[in-house]
Amino acid sequence: MTRKFNFSAGPAALPEAVLERVRDDLPEYGDTGCSVMEISHRGRVFGDIAARAEADLRELLGIPEDYRVLFLQGGATAQFALVPMNLLRDDEIADYVVTGHWGKKARTEAARAGRINLSVDTVESGYTKIPPVDQWRLSEGAGYLHFTPNETIAGVEFPSEPGAVGAPLVADMSSNILSRPLDVSRYGLIYAGAQKNIGPAGLCVLIISDEVLARCRDDLPSVFSYRAQAEQGSMLNTPNTFAWYVAGLVFQWVKEQGGVEAMGERNRRKADLLYEAIDASGFYSNPVDRDARSRMNVPFTLADPSLDPVFLEEAEHAGLLALKGHRSVGGMRASLYNAMPIEGVRGLVDFMEGFERRHG
Amino acid sequence: MTRKFNFSAGPAALPEAVLERVRDDLPEYGDTGCSVMEISHRGRVFGDIAARAEADLRELLGIPEDYRVLFLQGGATAQFALVPMNLLRDDEIADYVVTGHWGKKARTEAARAGRINLSVDTVESGYTKIPPVDQWRLSEGAGYLHFTPNETIAGVEFPSEPGAVGAPLVADMSSNILSRPLDVSRYGLIYAGAQKNIGPAGLCVLIISDEVLARCRDDLPSVFSYRAQAEQGSMLNTPNTFAWYVAGLVFQWVKEQGGVEAMGERNRRKADLLYEAIDASGFYSNPVDRDARSRMNVPFTLADPSLDPVFLEEAEHAGLLALKGHRSVGGMRASLYNAMPIEGVRGLVDFMEGFERRHG
Repeated sequence: MTRKFNFSAGPAALPEAVLERVRDDLPEYGDTGCSVMEISHRGRVFGDIAARAEADLRELLGIPEDYRVLFLQGGATAQFALVPMNLLRDDEIADYVVTGHWGKKARTEAARAGRINLSVDTVESGYTKIPPVDQWRLSEGAGYLHFTPNETIAGVEFPSEPGAVGAPLVADMSSNILSRPLDVSRYGLIYAGAQKNIGPAGLCVLIISDEVLARCRDDLPSVFSYRAQAEQGSMLNTPNTFAWYVAGLVFQWVKEQGGVEAMGERNRRKADLLYEAIDASGFYSNPVDRDARSRMNVPFTLADPSLDPVFLEEAEHAGLLALKGHRSVGGMRASLYNAMPIEGVRGLVDFMEGFERRHG
Repeated sequence: MTRKFNFSAGPAALPEAVLERVRDDLPEYGDTGCSVMEISHRGRVFGDIAARAEADLRELLGIPEDYRVLFLQGGATAQFALVPMNLLRDDEIADYVVTGHWGKKARTEAARAGRINLSVDTVESGYTKIPPVDQWRLSEGAGYLHFTPNETIAGVEFPSEPGAVGAPLVADMSSNILSRPLDVSRYGLIYAGAQKNIGPAGLCVLIISDEVLARCRDDLPSVFSYRAQAEQGSMLNTPNTFAWYVAGLVFQWVKEQGGVEAMGERNRRKADLLYEAIDASGFYSNPVDRDARSRMNVPFTLADPSLDPVFLEEAEHAGLLALKGHRSVGGMRASLYNAMPIEGVRGLVDFMEGFERRHG
């Protein structure tokens, strides 16, 4: 069997070199006599793996000294609740900017744990826009402002970091972390579920400033407390050691590719290639504002939706997997995370042109 | 490199056949063209893996039809908080039976989320006893009673299921699930972190009766709600797909070994072998009441503690890993979970006898 081009929105493709390394580390990791899944998280071997993963991520993103990095379980969805549980004090309010499905979910979950103000909601546009900061309805003295820099379903992404809003910025970067350079110092808290650009599902990476950490509540069950987890180096309880190890391999791979500058350039080229093919065609279309289009997730529809199943079947036959769009948008979606090589996007564009000739 | 005998308390040894299968499934799972870490949890391929894992676990433990099985993230420590958050209504109280370190932790975390009564605490005995039910201080109309059937640090285990206490029984079976037959119908809720007898860390399996589920609160953030997770088949958000897949391989392996009856017999033989060697010696000792001794975790001390580092170094050299005892107990600890073959225990006993001859 040979590997195919996997456009899954998540759990998503991992670099082939990383998968081969994981395979080669089984059933024994180095000279330890057992696999990486079977060793104590508190021992020297895993301690080295964990520390190197953090150091490489710090190097890749230029994370300042006064930020903590946490490797937690529960996925980004757990953070939807844990962010307000940790960050909001008493009757404090948090601002939410909703530019897609995930921002909406984050806001819904947060509303079960704290007071929330909806600062932006682009649902009327079909989540195809990113309004500028001067149009956001901000609360006086908000505890934080939450937004989702990239939305995987409608395929809409902030073209750059938003300007200052007064409150600390909290960002769900699950689907675009490590995809381009990032100024961490602009944020109070960044969190990212691993299963797109970091590693396997079951891990969530948090980058939190000491300033925000210092104001976090400390009356939560400890497993949910950012402060308790930070004090214990994310080992308050047994972490997802396997995913942490794979994440470390992915960080090494990103460094070998030239870091996030190189990834950003490569991701821009990949996305340009696909959007140009869509825009040049009368057969495919994408409704998102050009300056808000995602470089990670490219949804597109066919002029004749009755051809959708034919497209998917022929694509799969051509080795192009998981292109079905989310049901709320319809059509197709190609996710172009870091592990997708440009050859995969070229293959997709060639296939799309051939499909249009045959069926258009 | 060859595999060694790994006595780690957790993350613990996995069956060698399972690790080889994981390796053979990389970088491609079957004819899918990608690995099991890279496929959608909502697709057919992972759906089959998830359903088979649940079906095999149901078969192994004889789980009644009116119980749900959940595969959640966060480890058992998250359940320490989520159990009271889900099960306790308003000013309801829960009874906690503390017979070791983990029961104490469960009680401490629960006290941050609800009203708790301490029904039993054996700390004064050094956690070496299991008092009978008629000595427990039970609350009138408790929402549930929580206990820890096996404690990994002091090595103390309930010899059988406790009798009826009125309230639904909630058990943290992280360290002894699947190690012997179990009457699930006696419990309201069983939970178990995976990293001892089920699979890699980062997964927690819950078995919950429909009756208990029906009384669970529904005003929690959905990711923390047992009812919401049950309604979504543990896929309210992306689950730890890799650990779920490995757990399924472990369940198949336990079936191939003859199921939990055969595992129980094998585990009894393994533990007997080691306890007999300890008791026959004047050099090694274990302080736990004989009828409360754990078949999973066997702590023992050396007559001369200054020999501890020598014992550990020589054991490691002999291919016997991770025998260092928990700092609160000192000495050694051999964890004999399902994946430890009897040959490993024989090897340990032979080594202990030789060590005593050389140094005793």
